[in-house]
Amino acid sequence: MKIKLDCIPCFQRQALEASRFVTKDIILQEKILRRVIKELENMDWTGTPPEMAHVVHQIVKEECTVNDPYKDIKKQYNDIALSFYPEMKEIVNNSAEPLLTTVRLAIAGNIIDFGASSQFDLNETISKVLEKEFAINDFDKLLETLGRSNILLYLADNTGEIVFDKLLLETILNKYKINKILFGVKGAPIINDAMIEDAEYVGINKLPGVEFIKIGIGLPNTGVERNSKEFHDILTNSDIVISKGQGNYEALSKYGDIFFLLMAKCPVIADDLNVKIGDFILKETKKVQN
Amino acid sequence: MKIKLDCIPCFQRQALEASRFVTKDIILQEKILRRVIKELENMDWTGTPPEMAHVVHQIVKEECTVNDPYKDIKKQYNDIALSFYPEMKEIVNNSAEPLLTTVRLAIAGNIIDFGASSQFDLNETISKVLEKEFAINDFDKLLETLGRSNILLYLADNTGEIVFDKLLLETILNKYKINKILFGVKGAPIINDAMIEDAEYVGINKLPGVEFIKIGIGLPNTGVERNSKEFHDILTNSDIVISKGQGNYEALSKYGDIFFLLMAKCPVIADDLNVKIGDFILKETKKVQN
Repeated sequence: MKIKLDCIPCFQRQALEASRFVTKDIILQEKILRRVIKELENMDWTGTPPEMAHVVHQIVKEECTVNDPYKDIKKQYNDIALSFYPEMKEIVNNSAEPLLTTVRLAIAGNIIDFGASSQFDLNETISKVLEKEFAINDFDKLLETLGRSNILLYLADNTGEIVFDKLLLETILNKYKINKILFGVKGAPIINDAMIEDAEYVGINKLPGVEFIKIGIGLPNTGVERNSKEFHDILTNSDIVISKGQGNYEALSKYGDIFFLLMAKCPVIADDLNVKIGDFILKETKKVQN
Repeated sequence: MKIKLDCIPCFQRQALEASRFVTKDIILQEKILRRVIKELENMDWTGTPPEMAHVVHQIVKEECTVNDPYKDIKKQYNDIALSFYPEMKEIVNNSAEPLLTTVRLAIAGNIIDFGASSQFDLNETISKVLEKEFAINDFDKLLETLGRSNILLYLADNTGEIVFDKLLLETILNKYKINKILFGVKGAPIINDAMIEDAEYVGINKLPGVEFIKIGIGLPNTGVERNSKEFHDILTNSDIVISKGQGNYEALSKYGDIFFLLMAKCPVIADDLNVKIGDFILKETKKVQN
């Protein structure tokens, strides 16, 4: 998915918010914003959102001389999400359709996305997700594919959200014979995306058969485009791929067969999916047959 | 109120949205956005939001060669608001406190603000405003001041919203002896702000004792800063001033004695008022005594 013009001001908002996590110095914040604007001005606007976000967040890191502006907020949201865990577990246990309920909750968890907005209400989103119809709903296909899968590739998105992912994976493991879960996290800090240390913090590493793989920025051969041969071999060799969030959708929407679970949180994604902002999505993309 | 750094990407979003009301040509949209960015880059970031918004929207008007990119959407929202009118009138008539209810509704109407966001839900906002506590509530002072006022200066904000203002003014006229209402509209198109033709369309001109005054951009002696002598004589000579919306607050918050009725819709305003985004505000500012 290529960027749209809306992404240009959005990158600047992200840069500003990221810089505020690190510094209260308004002069420095303005310097960062002006450098981001200059950089955007000099770019062709033809990349994908993750590609361009990488450039923008690199400027924040350099100017603030920190490697991870979101470090504290990531920890904070892992803790907040963990505090929701017992109640959510009970909701799932009391549910007539536990898997559907955990899928719903896993999509709600996707609201914890500082790329899309730092203004969100997790409580309200959880209430909504349990009631509102999905705008796109390939749940039956998800069930069917899970039923014949051994290897699950799960592409995670944000810290905090991964607690909701853990609940979904536990429910899947309870019912289906998945031997191996490849849990994809980012190889380097980008916005509030989860890395291995975040996933370990919430106990993903204790799930049976789980292995971490590092995708996205920071790793050799898995660029921001997630288009390396190595990564696509993993995609192909997995029996089922579940992909969380906007960033993975932006980078991978042209590939099949992937189940995308996300909330549409910005006009660009909503437009691409032909849904409204705030809609919940469970969409399977199909591989184009040659 | 001076701009904050958040305003910089927000102006770009506004320019993009405005250009899309006029043209589907993405090349032209990109040209406008790039020109806005260049202009912002070359500015000192020390003006007020209305000052800088004026420069930005001027670029859209020039590039699209239209005088009012929001012309159609303004008409549309006047019509939508008029369709709400009978139901709102009934809510007011059945209310134990009609004036408080119309004040609430007038604040809800302020959600129709394409400067803040083109994504809003009028129905949801009306439901919320009737239940939620105001974050700042100087309603008692408003009543007291209305009780001793003959001349009311009412500074309107957006098209559509003015239908809600009309309901408030009708309720005020029903109870208080206001001889003259000076209804302030914009003298030239800026975003979806109401002008005389919009106010006449919804029947503000039929209120007894009403006179229009034109403030804001486009008029001699009432610049975007609303700081001309002529305008401030009107402010001083009015017994009560009711000011709607963010733009008027941004330009006039340093002056007293004004009752500001608005929804906090962006982080900059929310921060200035020390409230949250989405909060409802009825705030009286006091004149600094020399």
